[in-house]
Amino acid sequence: MTVVQENKSPESVQESLQQVQALLGQQPFAEPKNRSAARRHLGELQTLLDTLHPADVAYILEALPREQRLIVWELVKAERDGEILLEVSDAVRETLIAHMDSDELLAAAETLDTDEIADLAPDLPQDVIEELLQSLDAQNRARLQSAMSFDEDTVGALMDYDMVSVRDDVTLEVVLHYLRRLGELPDQTDKLFVVDQQDHLKGVLPLKHLLTLDPSATVSTVMVDDVVLFHPADVAREAAQAFERYDLVTAPVIDAEHHLIGRLTVDVVMDYIRDSAESEKLGLAGLREEEDLFASVWKSVQNRWAWLAINLVTAFIASRVIGAFEGSIQKLVALAALMPIVAGIGGNSGNQTITMIVRALALGQLHTTGARKLIFKELGVAGLNGLIWGSVMGLIAYLLYKNIFLGLVITSAMILNLLLAAVVGVLIPLFMVKMGRDPAVGSSVLITAITDSGGFFIFLGLATLFLV
Amino acid sequence: MTVVQENKSPESVQESLQQVQALLGQQPFAEPKNRSAARRHLGELQTLLDTLHPADVAYILEALPREQRLIVWELVKAERDGEILLEVSDAVRETLIAHMDSDELLAAAETLDTDEIADLAPDLPQDVIEELLQSLDAQNRARLQSAMSFDEDTVGALMDYDMVSVRDDVTLEVVLHYLRRLGELPDQTDKLFVVDQQDHLKGVLPLKHLLTLDPSATVSTVMVDDVVLFHPADVAREAAQAFERYDLVTAPVIDAEHHLIGRLTVDVVMDYIRDSAESEKLGLAGLREEEDLFASVWKSVQNRWAWLAINLVTAFIASRVIGAFEGSIQKLVALAALMPIVAGIGGNSGNQTITMIVRALALGQLHTTGARKLIFKELGVAGLNGLIWGSVMGLIAYLLYKNIFLGLVITSAMILNLLLAAVVGVLIPLFMVKMGRDPAVGSSVLITAITDSGGFFIFLGLATLFLV
Repeated sequence: MTVVQENKSPESVQESLQQVQALLGQQPFAEPKNRSAARRHLGELQTLLDTLHPADVAYILEALPREQRLIVWELVKAERDGEILLEVSDAVRETLIAHMDSDELLAAAETLDTDEIADLAPDLPQDVIEELLQSLDAQNRARLQSAMSFDEDTVGALMDYDMVSVRDDVTLEVVLHYLRRLGELPDQTDKLFVVDQQDHLKGVLPLKHLLTLDPSATVSTVMVDDVVLFHPADVAREAAQAFERYDLVTAPVIDAEHHLIGRLTVDVVMDYIRDSAESEKLGLAGLREEEDLFASVWKSVQNRWAWLAINLVTAFIASRVIGAFEGSIQKLVALAALMPIVAGIGGNSGNQTITMIVRALALGQLHTTGARKLIFKELGVAGLNGLIWGSVMGLIAYLLYKNIFLGLVITSAMILNLLLAAVVGVLIPLFMVKMGRDPAVGSSVLITAITDSGGFFIFLGLATLFLV
Repeated sequence: MTVVQENKSPESVQESLQQVQALLGQQPFAEPKNRSAARRHLGELQTLLDTLHPADVAYILEALPREQRLIVWELVKAERDGEILLEVSDAVRETLIAHMDSDELLAAAETLDTDEIADLAPDLPQDVIEELLQSLDAQNRARLQSAMSFDEDTVGALMDYDMVSVRDDVTLEVVLHYLRRLGELPDQTDKLFVVDQQDHLKGVLPLKHLLTLDPSATVSTVMVDDVVLFHPADVAREAAQAFERYDLVTAPVIDAEHHLIGRLTVDVVMDYIRDSAESEKLGLAGLREEEDLFASVWKSVQNRWAWLAINLVTAFIASRVIGAFEGSIQKLVALAALMPIVAGIGGNSGNQTITMIVRALALGQLHTTGARKLIFKELGVAGLNGLIWGSVMGLIAYLLYKNIFLGLVITSAMILNLLLAAVVGVLIPLFMVKMGRDPAVGSSVLITAITDSGGFFIFLGLATLFLV
């Protein structure tokens, strides 16, 4: 009888990381006089790495600076390279693959399933892919080629081929015998896929039915025929929503003729959800992709420059709007101090509206037809907020500059800029959807650009009309 | 033999929504002359609703305006109320519960498991909870009380009690008989939990072992004893990371004495991941919580005002910084037009740094000790970006205003503000972690406040020293 090991509680990977760092940090590996101590530490390190789950090794690789990362990577057993490459982030995978020659890459890829090879393929040199295709049998070569051809955000790119199917005209007893002969079931298997003689999907047979129902029953009489199923071209985001909604663990993927061709599993879907959320977050801050924490300065600059350039352009436009009112500012310099407030609140409020609308669009709860109703609601919210905060700022401006008209102008400008933010906050995402673009990308820059330039224009324009 | 229904492909819930909207929209229900047609449509609607999955009904309820939502809610069979309440968003749940009396709520809750009742509890009136506690047996009452007491973001709040456990000293054959007698297994069950006589967890028995291994083997010899397990007080976010990392479907939850007390399932974990990502996104835009798309204006204002107020305060501080340099602006009004550019690029760059650091902290890849290395890297990135974009803007400013010193001042100010953004971009999240706060909340406002005020101060300060 064995005892449950607690070394896999959530904190444990942190501990492993600290152990690795300690072993790496204790001795400067380069110093010759410490060779034997260094070698001993490397040995200990290797033993530690061998006990770790591939995902944990990947995690440790990501957390280590370049040189230490490569030391650890060298120590990982070659037959685990493939699995670990699958687990690390894109940025770190690049750094690891850059240090492997074709033979090593080939050996790593050959330990993987075809759907996993397809995931690595974008980072592999062309010659390695050619050789891999050569080495596969006809079925797997066709699978790899089709898996590599699927669009990144489709079910086809996420599916695997580890499905176990059974015929609909046999008894559960026969299925049970078949499984025992098979000797093993793929990970995540919660159901078998039921097909007819032509491999058309007829339904699914949950393992729990197999375990609880009468073995003499025929598969077709006990299978579930109301199945959530997918096609390779289905949008991955919608498949993920279906997994969440119906609490799925696995689901069959079929082709246009209803043939079973693969399956989707919850672990892949969960990774997809996480990755989408991550890249949306990165995108909001204008990072092109996840960044290796220890990337070079030059690499980081490349990842970030586009966003800064775009923002510089919008800021420059806003600056020219201000430039057009330089005469007014010279006459009443208080305008310069107050104008960022008007622009700022418009941007904040507009981003709130956009976040709401993008969310509703992503959930499919909003169709372009419902837009008018929402614009009125957002106008109401913006008007009320404008009245409240505009009045507050109007009062403060009056107290600071003893000019009641300045107070009235900033109040009106804030109300108007908030109303502008509300209208474009609803329209921008809807417009992007109509153009077939992802409303989550770029909406925020666009609204800030509009509320900045718009805010300066409204405030300085009103001031020019009524004050100077 | 039955045919696979394709009505559960990802698009189908959209279609159902459109059908519901069509049935609701065809007739104004209030007009008396259309009573019989209205009644027929309501009948059709009810038939349609009865065929839908609770999650789909929830989805439709969320997408409908208030009045239509309540019409649909009335038509839902009472025994499904509980399940559907669990699926809808918090904001919409409130609106539904507000329209139910105590008896209806009690009836709805009684169809649920204790862990599910605990999820609803925050929204239920106190008297309903009291009555519910009365109606339960001792074990379930204790479970409900403890489930309600767990902190929202702990494993305890996510776990359920639907675990099937088997003794370690029996054979697989005995287990197979036991399951057949049990007749049913809880959803998501991919493994049985193995316990000793005192209910101490000893390991897990995957269903696939049960199906493929020799039935005469003893459980203890074939069970997996290297188990990923959790305690009720574990942080939910870390448990979710473990589910992702080790591709789990279910995992046991144990108490301090190693007794099996519950289980975590992947569907709940996936919902948790989604909810966390959602509320982070909402938080970034300063929305306190997810908003019912059809909430009243007043409710929306309440959800959004705090953020606008905070931003108004930081904008006001920045405005006072500008106010201190009014004399310089009056002498050289170009400063007013150029200053938002300096402030803006600092905010953008700082937010990029913060996003990177918050991500690394969330993954546990960054400890406060590694901060110095990262600050130097971020300073390098900021310096290089400042040199590039500062020079571009310096040149443009020179060309616009024919003043080479103005060009040099804006170049220097941009470099300095980007360096400031880099340092505080690293330090703010680390500082928040040290204070025991979530670095994802508030970091963005804080850095924008600093780079705005800082940017104005640096640019106008340099201009005052060297230009006017």
